[in-house]
Amino acid sequence: MSRFKYNEVYDYLKNEITEGQLQSGTKLPSIRKASELFGVSRTTVQNAYFELAADGYIFSEPQSGYYVSYRSGGQSESAEAPLPQKSLRFDFTSSSADAQSFDFDLWRRYMKNALRQDERLISYSETQGERELREAIADYIFEKRNVVASPDRIIIGAGVQSLLGIFCALIESRGTVSFPDKSFEQGAALFEDYGFDVHYRYKDADIIYVSPSHMTRWGDVMPNKRRRELVRHSAEINSLVIEDDYESDFLYNTRPTPSLHALAGGKNVIYLGSFSRLLLPSIRISFMVLTQELAEEYRKNIYKFSQTASKTEQLALCSFIRDGHLKAQIRKTRRFYTAKTKEFALLLGDKLPEAEIEISENALQIIIKAPFKRDEEAFEKNSTAVFIEGVENGRITIVINVTSIPEKEFENAAEALKKAINN
Amino acid sequence: MSRFKYNEVYDYLKNEITEGQLQSGTKLPSIRKASELFGVSRTTVQNAYFELAADGYIFSEPQSGYYVSYRSGGQSESAEAPLPQKSLRFDFTSSSADAQSFDFDLWRRYMKNALRQDERLISYSETQGERELREAIADYIFEKRNVVASPDRIIIGAGVQSLLGIFCALIESRGTVSFPDKSFEQGAALFEDYGFDVHYRYKDADIIYVSPSHMTRWGDVMPNKRRRELVRHSAEINSLVIEDDYESDFLYNTRPTPSLHALAGGKNVIYLGSFSRLLLPSIRISFMVLTQELAEEYRKNIYKFSQTASKTEQLALCSFIRDGHLKAQIRKTRRFYTAKTKEFALLLGDKLPEAEIEISENALQIIIKAPFKRDEEAFEKNSTAVFIEGVENGRITIVINVTSIPEKEFENAAEALKKAINN
Repeated sequence: MSRFKYNEVYDYLKNEITEGQLQSGTKLPSIRKASELFGVSRTTVQNAYFELAADGYIFSEPQSGYYVSYRSGGQSESAEAPLPQKSLRFDFTSSSADAQSFDFDLWRRYMKNALRQDERLISYSETQGERELREAIADYIFEKRNVVASPDRIIIGAGVQSLLGIFCALIESRGTVSFPDKSFEQGAALFEDYGFDVHYRYKDADIIYVSPSHMTRWGDVMPNKRRRELVRHSAEINSLVIEDDYESDFLYNTRPTPSLHALAGGKNVIYLGSFSRLLLPSIRISFMVLTQELAEEYRKNIYKFSQTASKTEQLALCSFIRDGHLKAQIRKTRRFYTAKTKEFALLLGDKLPEAEIEISENALQIIIKAPFKRDEEAFEKNSTAVFIEGVENGRITIVINVTSIPEKEFENAAEALKKAINN
Repeated sequence: MSRFKYNEVYDYLKNEITEGQLQSGTKLPSIRKASELFGVSRTTVQNAYFELAADGYIFSEPQSGYYVSYRSGGQSESAEAPLPQKSLRFDFTSSSADAQSFDFDLWRRYMKNALRQDERLISYSETQGERELREAIADYIFEKRNVVASPDRIIIGAGVQSLLGIFCALIESRGTVSFPDKSFEQGAALFEDYGFDVHYRYKDADIIYVSPSHMTRWGDVMPNKRRRELVRHSAEINSLVIEDDYESDFLYNTRPTPSLHALAGGKNVIYLGSFSRLLLPSIRISFMVLTQELAEEYRKNIYKFSQTASKTEQLALCSFIRDGHLKAQIRKTRRFYTAKTKEFALLLGDKLPEAEIEISENALQIIIKAPFKRDEEAFEKNSTAVFIEGVENGRITIVINVTSIPEKEFENAAEALKKAINN
């Protein structure tokens, strides 16, 4: 097959499609016909069709043939299949990201670079996660949170949930585990399924799960004094503390708070972190820093586990961190989200003059206390999801998060919220 | 920032690097200096540097600056960091792929197309897996294996292990589970950690795990008669059968065997499949078809779970399957692996004239029975890993897999094996 001819067929059809000579839905000539038409071999046509399909200009319909899929942007038909129906107009509980906060082009470049590493992609990821990425994470958490951990103690996984599953499998005796409240349903359910006794705010539990940078739905941050107490108490009674450092990177208007891991000198503390919130929710890479003892237990039992995080994404993320982009991205996201939260709080203040409106300590939540004469379904009827903390003495307390709502929708979103509270 | 100027800086430096004017390791001018040098703003320089780094031409050294990383191929320094040390010269137990069997360029195109979908990548994947991919899988397994399942009953996950974790969490009472032998350690350990009683070849277990297309290390295929018996017996005693259809796509020299799921009409059978073996080990996407009852249980408990498979890879795989490439890839891989297995078996026959050499039923394993006067460590000493089935009456039985060994290494690999057996 001459590379030249194949390019010609590809280019010719691509132009016809992008310039609208061949419209979306048009059937392309069969491979046999096209091979006569262009005076090239069938293989040449087939390869051109494959590439056009891979690039999203055409798509194949089994037992029928190829059709033009191009609309603006060159995405394939399949790529533009309908998104899952959103029944909500405004979701103030979402932890999705705002597309504006993320430099997609940059991430795509890193992914492309990772995808170029054929020799690495033909093998499974290291069970524990790619060594290079664990090294980059070790450097990163040392610098940011004073967490001292060799890469041997770091386990990568697709989401905190899968890492907690590994943790459960490493703990020999099923004892008690404590959560701060009922909001982390997933975690509680997992421990229960593994045969642990789940408690809430039980300070003498064998395992104490906390997220000090986002203690409650209210976005409270655990004060330094309580951090020290927790570390001391858990060392005394020999509990294991799981520190989920969720959103610590977004803290901005508080004095910096030390990680429990650093306070405890790495003893008795498991440190959990995740990149979904820092980069993109669709990037499912989290990590867990084990204690020395549990890391040894992990190595003994490594046959039990397998890596869940995408190897390509691990390689891309590793270079991304090494080149300093993670830090830049966090600064940018933090500024952007903080500005959005403030802006929305102001807008809401105008709409709801009788309400108390407050921004949470971690600057990602808005807490609204407003006069309220209806039932909680008012929110559902207005297709608006919020966390309702309670209704008392004719006032409702709700917590909202606006980071995933595009700024151009702010006016409508605030209006919908006003309606749900007032009407 | 003028796009033009930025491109100029990028192009200029890229040329200098690829043409060897700037050699690997050379430090680039600081951003301030370069901005004077090129007569452009610092932001312009910085953006050009970021892009060069993302494209792998340069890398940043914290607190120091940017360095040229280019060698041939344009991969970044970090991308070329040393691979984990292989202590083995030849690993005949590996299930890695042979790079030759996979069309990387095609896959990269699908990944690029998926990465272009900004709006979808800013949100988490659907908990159950992307609907489109579940639809594509439903069509695929119906066509290939007569498995009738609506996308609502399909759960996507990063690896069979995480799917079995979900399965365990859905089963209310911890009863008995049976595995065919001890080779699937991961599965057995997982069920044990969840509190199940693990047995082997126990036909009255509550849960019966089988992989009918790869029953044993020997690559045996479960005969149709036994399939029917298993389905009938498990329906009678109301057991759940987990059918891991591992490697069914590679069966070539046997008459086609029906899936247990199809034989049972979808009742009492959980069907498991994976794409790691069909495409690339680094693509961690597997799926599980639940029974109607368990699918309802899943929906009730969906808050417990989260998606582990990469969203980008899910989107790419979906279009890849829809465009018919999965089928083509399987045909190609099967042909390629079969040919390799045959070739190596012949080569080995010449080297070991006194040995019996046989190809497994699924055509992926070679079984060798040879005179043997040493101990099993002979293999370790020769840096050669094989599955040793046993030594009896002066003969050793080993099972090897050569699919991941490059053909150009065949002569050396066969020689190493000969040495480990004979010397």
